[in-house]
Amino acid sequence: MRRPTVLIFDVNETLSDMSPLAQRFEDVGAPGHLAALWFAGLLRDGFALTVAGVGRPFADIGAEVLRAALHDERLTSSLDAAVEHIMSGFSQLDVHADVPEGIRALRRVGLRLVTLSNGSSAVAEGLLQRAGLQDHVERFLSVDAAGIWKPAPGSYAYALRECRVTPVDAMLVAVHPWDTDGAARAGLRSAWVNRGGADYPGYFRSPDLKVASLVDLAERLA
Amino acid sequence: MRRPTVLIFDVNETLSDMSPLAQRFEDVGAPGHLAALWFAGLLRDGFALTVAGVGRPFADIGAEVLRAALHDERLTSSLDAAVEHIMSGFSQLDVHADVPEGIRALRRVGLRLVTLSNGSSAVAEGLLQRAGLQDHVERFLSVDAAGIWKPAPGSYAYALRECRVTPVDAMLVAVHPWDTDGAARAGLRSAWVNRGGADYPGYFRSPDLKVASLVDLAERLA
Repeated sequence: MRRPTVLIFDVNETLSDMSPLAQRFEDVGAPGHLAALWFAGLLRDGFALTVAGVGRPFADIGAEVLRAALHDERLTSSLDAAVEHIMSGFSQLDVHADVPEGIRALRRVGLRLVTLSNGSSAVAEGLLQRAGLQDHVERFLSVDAAGIWKPAPGSYAYALRECRVTPVDAMLVAVHPWDTDGAARAGLRSAWVNRGGADYPGYFRSPDLKVASLVDLAERLA
Repeated sequence: MRRPTVLIFDVNETLSDMSPLAQRFEDVGAPGHLAALWFAGLLRDGFALTVAGVGRPFADIGAEVLRAALHDERLTSSLDAAVEHIMSGFSQLDVHADVPEGIRALRRVGLRLVTLSNGSSAVAEGLLQRAGLQDHVERFLSVDAAGIWKPAPGSYAYALRECRVTPVDAMLVAVHPWDTDGAARAGLRSAWVNRGGADYPGYFRSPDLKVASLVDLAERLA
């Protein structure tokens, strides 16, 4: 494999540690384990629209799926306030522990770094700013500008155009197998970040690299 | 709205009560709330493949998502045995309480009834057999024969061809808004079964009917 020139990072869960969102559910009287169910439901519904070729803002889908997820809970606040409290948590997440060292190491290797999120550019930029890493990232791209979510081919094609690179010169980096699969189908290289040690699903296209962290990724690409 | 001639029923959760699957998770030492997360993740990954135009067997996706969902749990059996125990629960589910009376009432109205599942035909047929309702259902269709999952247009088109009806003469009946949305985009009528009282998401196309049960649906179509 030829070394890519641009790394395209997924943002939610790949760079951000989403575990504090569970506490936000508990803050409003709901069980913390609903956070994972909510995020899976958000992607499920977003992907259903992607099948139809429709792209809607991540935060809009997130808020409505959240309302449904909280519907049967005995909340300690109004439903509107609970949704607002949890959704605002997205803007206050921090990066995973391996991200600062990993990002700096990848820059030292000479790679260009961009993000491509199904969420907003502002959330991604804020995340990297809080970690003091924003200067290492060339662009904060969102599928909002592509009109279609990942894993549709058009979302990756948008990022390639913005970065002015061919697919084989770009590598998508994500913790989500559906994202590495979509990137592979669009002709990009892909790296799966597997912090938890789970197996990669056999029904998705295998990533070019499987790494345990961004530090590991930098070592593999050095 | 002209009355449809054929009702096309979704199966999982629409006809079947999936709540006993939570007990199956507890049987193997995992929390019961993982059942909902697992099912949402199954659909998330299945829809990601649907975006790519790929249809894989529901049980294959289900088993692999289940392995990932159980990865961090302290199981009381081997992972293989736990996956087998939970997956086999699909074949032993029963219909929701409103289904027998609703199905019989819909037949009395003179409607043709078929099922269309992202899962297998055998699971759907077994479910209706256990309820003594199989003779009221003309066909047990699966997207396996269409090569693509709902909510892709091709899945609904397959059912229309098999039933020899035009889209406006068919109504998709489901508890899942992503399914009624997909059917509406494919030109079918749609009915959303809302047993829990949640709101219908604003980002999906509105169903032609919102009903509280299949009995309610029969009354609305009488």
